[in-house]
Formats: sequence, structure tokens, C-alpha cells
Amino acid sequence: MYRSHTCGELNIADINKEVTLSGWVQTVRKFGSITFVDLRDRYGITQLLFGERLNEQLDQTPLGREFVLQVNGVVAERSNKNKNIATGEIELDVHSFKVLNKSAVPPFTIQDETDGGDDLRMKYRYLDLRRNPVKRNIELRYAVSRSVRNYMHENNFMDIETPFLIKSTPEGARDFVVPSRMNEGQFYALPQSPQTFKQLLMISGYDRYYQIVKCFRDEDLRADRQPEFTQIDCEMSFVEQEDILQMFEGLVRRVFKDVKQIDYSEIIERISWEEAMWQYGNDKPDIRFGMKIANLKFPQHSFPTKKEQSEIFDGVDFKVFKEAETVVAITVPDAAEYSRKQIDELTEWVKRPQIGMMGLVNIKYNKDGSLRSSIDKFFSEEKLKAMAAVAGAKAGDLILILAGKEERTRKAMSELRLEMGKRLGFRKDNEYKLLWVLDFPLFEYAEEENRWVARHHPFTSPKPDDIATMINNNPKIEHPEKYLEHPYANIKANAYDMVLNGNEIGGGSIRIFQKELQQKMFAALGMSDEEAKEKFGFLLGAFEFGAPPHGGLAFGFDRLCALLGGSESIRDFIAFPKNNSGRDVMIDAPSAIDQKQLDELQLSIN
Amino acid sequence: MYRSHTCGELNIADINKEVTLSGWVQTVRKFGSITFVDLRDRYGITQLLFGERLNEQLDQTPLGREFVLQVNGVVAERSNKNKNIATGEIELDVHSFKVLNKSAVPPFTIQDETDGGDDLRMKYRYLDLRRNPVKRNIELRYAVSRSVRNYMHENNFMDIETPFLIKSTPEGARDFVVPSRMNEGQFYALPQSPQTFKQLLMISGYDRYYQIVKCFRDEDLRADRQPEFTQIDCEMSFVEQEDILQMFEGLVRRVFKDVKQIDYSEIIERISWEEAMWQYGNDKPDIRFGMKIANLKFPQHSFPTKKEQSEIFDGVDFKVFKEAETVVAITVPDAAEYSRKQIDELTEWVKRPQIGMMGLVNIKYNKDGSLRSSIDKFFSEEKLKAMAAVAGAKAGDLILILAGKEERTRKAMSELRLEMGKRLGFRKDNEYKLLWVLDFPLFEYAEEENRWVARHHPFTSPKPDDIATMINNNPKIEHPEKYLEHPYANIKANAYDMVLNGNEIGGGSIRIFQKELQQKMFAALGMSDEEAKEKFGFLLGAFEFGAPPHGGLAFGFDRLCALLGGSESIRDFIAFPKNNSGRDVMIDAPSAIDQKQLDELQLSIN
Repeated sequence: MYRSHTCGELNIADINKEVTLSGWVQTVRKFGSITFVDLRDRYGITQLLFGERLNEQLDQTPLGREFVLQVNGVVAERSNKNKNIATGEIELDVHSFKVLNKSAVPPFTIQDETDGGDDLRMKYRYLDLRRNPVKRNIELRYAVSRSVRNYMHENNFMDIETPFLIKSTPEGARDFVVPSRMNEGQFYALPQSPQTFKQLLMISGYDRYYQIVKCFRDEDLRADRQPEFTQIDCEMSFVEQEDILQMFEGLVRRVFKDVKQIDYSEIIERISWEEAMWQYGNDKPDIRFGMKIANLKFPQHSFPTKKEQSEIFDGVDFKVFKEAETVVAITVPDAAEYSRKQIDELTEWVKRPQIGMMGLVNIKYNKDGSLRSSIDKFFSEEKLKAMAAVAGAKAGDLILILAGKEERTRKAMSELRLEMGKRLGFRKDNEYKLLWVLDFPLFEYAEEENRWVARHHPFTSPKPDDIATMINNNPKIEHPEKYLEHPYANIKANAYDMVLNGNEIGGGSIRIFQKELQQKMFAALGMSDEEAKEKFGFLLGAFEFGAPPHGGLAFGFDRLCALLGGSESIRDFIAFPKNNSGRDVMIDAPSAIDQKQLDELQLSIN
Repeated sequence: MYRSHTCGELNIADINKEVTLSGWVQTVRKFGSITFVDLRDRYGITQLLFGERLNEQLDQTPLGREFVLQVNGVVAERSNKNKNIATGEIELDVHSFKVLNKSAVPPFTIQDETDGGDDLRMKYRYLDLRRNPVKRNIELRYAVSRSVRNYMHENNFMDIETPFLIKSTPEGARDFVVPSRMNEGQFYALPQSPQTFKQLLMISGYDRYYQIVKCFRDEDLRADRQPEFTQIDCEMSFVEQEDILQMFEGLVRRVFKDVKQIDYSEIIERISWEEAMWQYGNDKPDIRFGMKIANLKFPQHSFPTKKEQSEIFDGVDFKVFKEAETVVAITVPDAAEYSRKQIDELTEWVKRPQIGMMGLVNIKYNKDGSLRSSIDKFFSEEKLKAMAAVAGAKAGDLILILAGKEERTRKAMSELRLEMGKRLGFRKDNEYKLLWVLDFPLFEYAEEENRWVARHHPFTSPKPDDIATMINNNPKIEHPEKYLEHPYANIKANAYDMVLNGNEIGGGSIRIFQKELQQKMFAALGMSDEEAKEKFGFLLGAFEFGAPPHGGLAFGFDRLCALLGGSESIRDFIAFPKNNSGRDVMIDAPSAIDQKQLDELQLSIN
């Protein structure tokens, strides 16, 4: 028996007990003839006292950091109590000890703040995982998974495993493929998601399915993307959008409660995709703060419910605004007194290549009610006031204005809004704001191929009201320049995203469950009947045998954990992540394989 | 809203309630102007009554099997009650209905006993999954997983995900590999198990880890093997064998309790590998019945603790036994009166190529105490009696004897024993007998390469008493013909298998945690230092920084579920299994991929 207790459980009630502990040496402090050692394990730290009697033995077997130690002794009350840790009132008076394993000096310190750089910590990930902040992340991840499983179970969802060796269907992202030795020249693909399988399970009558499951995408890795990632994947039968929104609001509330002890009892707001883009320039707005975008000149296109043109610039001869597709503003509260230097810095900020604007216009709505602007010579105070009114500014505020091509400008303003929110402390780490974004467009226009692509995926249903539009129109785009006038441009998807603090944490849709509509969808995406049958014949076939109405969603598990852990980086919440080149630098994978393996697979490398 | 209730929940307490149900049409029975429909969903079946008023509408929209139907109506008491189902006392008086989706006639009947063959059911797996027996298997699988997760959680195990894209180390079984597009000419491998990662987690101090996780092996598929399968994978730190045995006895007892409502309170027997092979001819004995194997002539080798030679055949001139390496017997209780025909049939049975014996000798220990044998002319009644005594036979029993090469004969006798056990009804479906098999040999001898191979895997530790033997001897086998005299031949592994009713359901070991011993192990397996470093450098590296003593095991989740479900076939317990060629015939995978995909991966097919 290596231990009778863990290093986290002994306390004042255990005094005089003889116990055995095992763990790692965190620190060694020698004071004359006695030595204190902090012994660490997963559960905590216990102070060990090596008295005079053991001095000689300690000299012969000097203890170093990260040595694995087994000690036997008696629990004693500490004279110098540490109220910060559970075991802080006691120490172990060591009677005997044994070094179970030695340790070389670690390449970085195993402490909350470490001196190890990113590369070093990735290479020695097994040591980085010993550090408390990393351990807390892994523990939080487990707590989230546990909470999710409990909620799903209580709501009659069944965890059903779907296969990993499936079929390559190179829509969407790129598949990882797996050569089959037994079926020459053929390949499996690793799933990008269990999408079609979970739909088949609904057709099989399983009613409520979930899985916490690895998915794979062979994409060029941007920062904070992983080739393998984890989804909480869910599907339900006999549901409409509202059923799904309520079920998964419940899930997220439960996770907040279980994992963060937060009672998220407020109503979860809902916003249409159009409003999100209009008010925040972004389909995953951070609503912890306002500073909504005001449109000083209405957009040329994209938003069917908005008016075509505002009159605010009538009679003003300011070319920049006049010629711009879009002019948008945000109001920064209580910032009218920004200095010239501060304004210049913001101007440089929007001119950076990542943002890409030509300049920044500002209007200062001074506390005294006067208005001053960088474009005073073109705008009367009356006009400035009108703009301030549209932007919702009050005396003391600063109005920031961007103008240019609609899409880029809206995006830039969204970035500027987030940046200002951050600078002003409106994006608090310990504040959580959930939001549903609804009513996405079903299709996007792919200019190069002059065809429609699915914004979400080819299994998402149009809104019930738009089904007829989809069925009764030819998806072909006869006039590319007027694609926005095609009836398909306005079809809305029966889809929804859940957004937390400006990050998409989940998304899903009500699925198509009628064969004809699914075929129409495949055709709309430019797939021939033959192709559709080859790739998705099994699903079209399944739709013939009584497919129920169904829908679902998937949460990005890594991202959800990261946000709950107060981090933007998913890598910190994965036990063994890959780097930005998709490499595991610890085990050194991927790597070359034997010629024998290639031969068996009948493959050669070009 | 598609439904207010499921098809499994309405009962006598709901009478007069107006409800909405959705589900599948199981049966349609027309009686004059009224029609009964059984509506099915995951939760049960509810009888629907379509009265006269709906007759015309039903004629216009005839319902067929597997149609998806939504009905609204009022719950009524049935005149003709069915006590076998939860909803059997009520029916729904339908007021309105809507066909949500039609169904073609299924290729086989969706009933407990179906007319569909195996191939058809695999192709239409989504329909097969609708059948009750299959659904019950999937539900049982979920119940096992739920039970396991709860037990593990209560015992402080953390579910930690390990990566799927790892490194190929072609020891043991063949890896599935995944070409890396971003790292030209390099490949990931899919894990055969998370073995090294769970060991790293122990080195990281995570103490108790588990995962229910997919694993992959590219093996030629025998019946009932799957290229992807699921393990309950576990690891613990600061443990000895006894700690692990107790922890996982607890797990299995819990699963029996939760899933089968069986209180498995009896002691779980333990047997050494040597005794298992000696008494049952098999390292995973079915101990639901006795009929142990008696060794009439002791073995030439393999069992160090057994005597070299018996005297029972001294002075008997029966060449078959005299020249045989091994002569083994089992006693079939109360079978002395088997007819000539029955004995002949058994003789044919052992002569089948799968068993491969030359013949079967029998001794009938008649009820009157006399003995008759097929080898009477060589054996005196006294000798027959002596053999009967060794075989533990009593009057009325039949002794069956096989002779030949030791390994094959022992294997054949094991098969014969199982066959007789089955025929005699000793292997009851509803009886469960667990067994630990311990003390496996650490190494096996690989004749072709004249070297040692790891019986379990290269991370399994020798028994504490055998560590010195391993360290202090050169693994090289100087005299291949006398390999059994090499000190390594007798080293026992610190390993254990859990056996249920003659099936290995789990196995594991205490691991090596010292760098030097691990290096010695790699060397013993014929790996050069360079090779060991290339393949397992990360693990050897990790052993330098304070690796704790640790060990674990893995259960075959598919097999465990199958056995608990009373089946020998794991395929029945996997939602979407592959066939014996590793194909998913439903989705038709694996399949050819686009040339573009091959080009991106810089691969060509030979």
C-alpha cells in the first residue's frame, strides 16, 4: 500500500494518526537540523517535517524537486498555521521515507507562474500538466462534461457512439482520410461531425441523442484551431426551433450552475442574424455592453428589411461619405474629452492592415452641448447634431465614424466597437451574457462558381414559410450581377447559434426530413443527382422510410470550457493539444512510417 | 408542438385528457368503419382509435406501416385491456391527424422477429435499429456507460480525453494511419489504445484517469472483430495489483447491479495463468461449470511448477499415449450411457479441422462400477480405474481422453470441454461467473526471430520478485532450442485479466515506471536504443522527471455489453458496425477519394 491518505485531506481532526502519503516534492526547506518538505499530489499539499533523527538519511538521499516520495509518520498540529490550504493546520512528523523515483531538474518550474516558454511547455506537456493553472483547466473540462452528461441523461438523451471510420464527402471543410488496407485504393474519412449519423438515429426512432465526441478537420490552422476537437453533439425528434432553444438554454444554465456556481436566471436574449449584423456588424455579438452601431447612410444591399437610403447627408458635399457604400458610427460614452493624441492613436488603429480602413472621423459632443468634429468644414452643427441623434449620443460622448465598402466597413466597426469595449472595461471576465442568433440566410453566394453554397450545411431546413420558395424556384443564377434578386437570396434558414460573450459556442438547425426537399437542396448546391446519390444515397434512402421532423445542435466543447475558464485559448483546455502546424511536439507526430506500412496500403509518396 | 406526451406514458390516470402524440405506425387494423392503429416511438406503443368520423379522411390518406403520424385526441379507457404494456389500459380517441412523412414498404418487417437477412439489415441499419431487440441492446450499452461513469466519478477518476491523431509505433497490431497534408510525407496513426497517454497523465499527477474511448486496429477481421472498437480505459497511480483488482471488482459489481439488477456479492475467484492453462487448457476459462482437465501424462514443458512425468502409463504398451507429448481427460458427469452413435459423433467433432485431433478415447465408468473403454485391449481394469481416479470420475460418468502435441491437445480439450458444457446446459445465459487470471508470463518466445515478445505490451512490469532477474540477465537467446531454460522464460508479468463466462472482458497491468527497466524491456524486445528513443523517447523522457508507480486496465466495452445482453456478438451492440471486410455497407465506406484529395496529400495509389 503506497498511501493511506492523499496529500489534500489531512486536517486537525487527524492529529496523532499514523499515516502514509505518496506524492511529489514541491519544495525542500532546510533549517539547521530539521527539514520541511511540501509534498504534492492531485488533491493538495501536505507539509512534511523531517526531524533530527532523519538528518543523516536525508544527507545520504538528498531530495530534489519533483522526486516521488513515500513517507510514513504521525499527523501533528503546526505551530505556524497556513489558513489558505485545507491541510494548513497540520504537518506530518515523518518517521520513515522512501524515494519511489528520482527526478532530473525540470526544464521549467512547476509553479503557477512558470519560467517556461510556450514551446518548452508543449514539448514537456506532461510537466506543464502538473502546474495548478493547467490542472484546474483539465478539472474544469471534466466538470463541464459531467454536468452536460447529467443534464442530458435527466432529459432522456442517450449517449450513442457513431463511427469514426466513415466516408469522405468533401463538401465544407477538408477531410482527414484513412487508407484502407483491406479495400485497395479506398479510404475512410474521419468525421467532421456525426451529422448524418445522428440524423439516421432520429430516423431510427432514438428520439434524443447526444455524444461528447471528437471531430476532425484538415484545415490550415489559424491560431487556436485544432485538427481534432470535441463537440457536444445533440439531436432531437418531433421538435421545432423553440423546443431546441429551450432545451439547450437549460443545458447551459445547468453548466453555469454546476461548474461556476452561477445562477444564470435572466432571459437569454434572441436576435435575428440581420439585426446582429446591423447593430453589431457581427453575427456573434458581445452584448455585455451596448455601443451599438448606427447606420448614418443605409446599406446598398444585404438587409431586406432596412430602408434603402437615409437623408442625413442630403445637401452635404463631403465626398468621403457621399461616395461610400456605408457610413457607420458608434458612440463612446463619456469620451468627448479624448485628446488629439488619443484620437490619432485610434485612427492609426483602424488603419492597421488587419482593420484596413482609410481613416476615422470623430464628433465630440462636448459636455456644454456644443459639437466639434474632424469634418467641421463640411457639416453644420445642425447636421452634426442630427448624426449624434442617430448615433444615440449625449453630451460628453465621442462619436466614431467609419466609411467605405459596406462589408469591410461594418467588419471594421465591429472590431473597433470590441476594442473600445475592452479598453473601457465593458468586457468583464466574470460577466457572462448569452445570446441566440436566429434566422440566418440559408444560402451564401459563391461568386467564383456562380452558385449557392449552404451557409450552415446541406441538411439545414429553410424556415417553414420559405420552403415553397425553395421548391418552386430554379436555383440557377441567370444574372450573376443581380444574384441578390434571386428568390434564394432571401430564404432564411431554420438555424440558430448560441453566442457567449462574443464567441459562438454552439449552433444547429432544424433539419430537412423530406426526400424531395433534400434533393432540391443538393441540386441548389450544384450537385448532380448522381453525385448526391453517391455521396448521400444512404440518407436519401433513409428519408423514404418514415423520417420524423428533427433538429439539433452542437456545442464546441473546447471553446465552451475555455470561456468558462476565463480564457480565449482552447489549447489550454486540451490535455495534449497540437501546435499551429498540427504537430504534437511532445510525441513528435506526425512522422514518417515504414516502407512496409506504405506497401501494405499500396501507397507511395510523390 | 409535435407532441404533448410520448407513446409510452399515457395510462388510466390520463383519461379524458386531450393530448397530441407523434410516432410511427406499427400496425393498422380496420374493423368495418373503425380503425385501430398502434403508434410507436422510442418510449412505447399507444393504441389509436380512428372512429367513423375520420373514415373518409383515412380512405383518402391511407396509412401504411412506418408512416410518421401526428394525432390529436382524447385518452379513453380501453374495453379490451392489454396488461403487457404500460399503456395497455387506454387508447387514444383520435380527433384529427396529420401524416408527417410517408414510408415506402420496408425491405424487412420492423418486428422482434424479422424476415430480413444479415446483409439486408446491415444495409438498412437505420431500419434494423428500430426493432426492439436492437434498440434494447443500444439502451443497454448506454446504461452500462452511465453506470461506469457514475462509479468512476464516485471514485475520483477523471475523464480526460487523449488525442486520436498520434504516432505510428508498429509493435503489436497494425496501425491505421492518417496522411498529414501539412507535414509532407508524414502520417499520424489512430490509437490502438491510449496506453502511453494515460501513463503520461499519471506522470503528470492526475492520479486516477478513465475514458470510454474509441480505439483502432487494422487487423484481418475475424468474425466479430471490428476495426474500431470501444474501451473503458483506466489508470491509477500509487497502486499495487491488489488495489486495482479491488477497484475494478467494484466497478463490475456496480454495473451488474445498475444494469442487470444482479447483486454479484460472491467472492471473485482468482487463478494463476498456469493453473488456468493446466485445469482448463485456456487462459480465459468458463468457470460456470467444472469438468476440469486432468493430465494423465504430465507435460514436457511450459508449467514450471508441475511434475515432469506421471507413472500412470508405466508398463502399458499403447503407442498413441506413449508417444504423445500430452494425454488429457475430462469427465462428463452421468454420461456413461452414451450410445455408440453419440460417441462416434463426438469423435467426428474432435476430428474436424477446427479442432484437429486424430481421435477420441473414452472410458465408461458404468453405474455398476465396471469400466469399459475403447482401449480395453491395452489397459487393465485397474489401469482404467487409476485413470478414472485421476480424472475425478465416479460411477455413471464418461471420461473423454485426447492425446497428441501438448499445445494443440490442450486447446482441443478446452474446446471439447466448452462444447460438452454447452450441450449439457452447464453454460447458462442468465448465470454470470467472474474470474481474475493472474501471473501471466511476461514474455513469449518468437521462434522466427529468435527473440522475446511482450505477451501483454512493452509497458507491463515484471512481478516485483522478477525485476532483478530481468535486469541482471542478458535477454539474448543463445540456444534457441533451449529457450525455455533462459531466465526470461520464467519471468511473470504483474498483469491481470478479468474473465466473464469464458470471455476476457478486461485486462491490464502494473506498469514499468523506471527508465532503466523500460529501456531493458525495449532491448529485450529487440529494439535498438535508437529505435526505442525514436518511438518512445517522450515516455523515456517523462520517466526522468518523477514517474510514480502506476497501473491500470482496460475493459472491452463492446464485449462487456454483448455479454451482459446475453449475446456473443459485439456487432449487435454497436449502432453502426462494420462487416467482416471492415466495410460500412450502409454508407458504402471505405470508398475512392478524389484525385484532388490525393494530390493535396502528395500520395499516389500503386
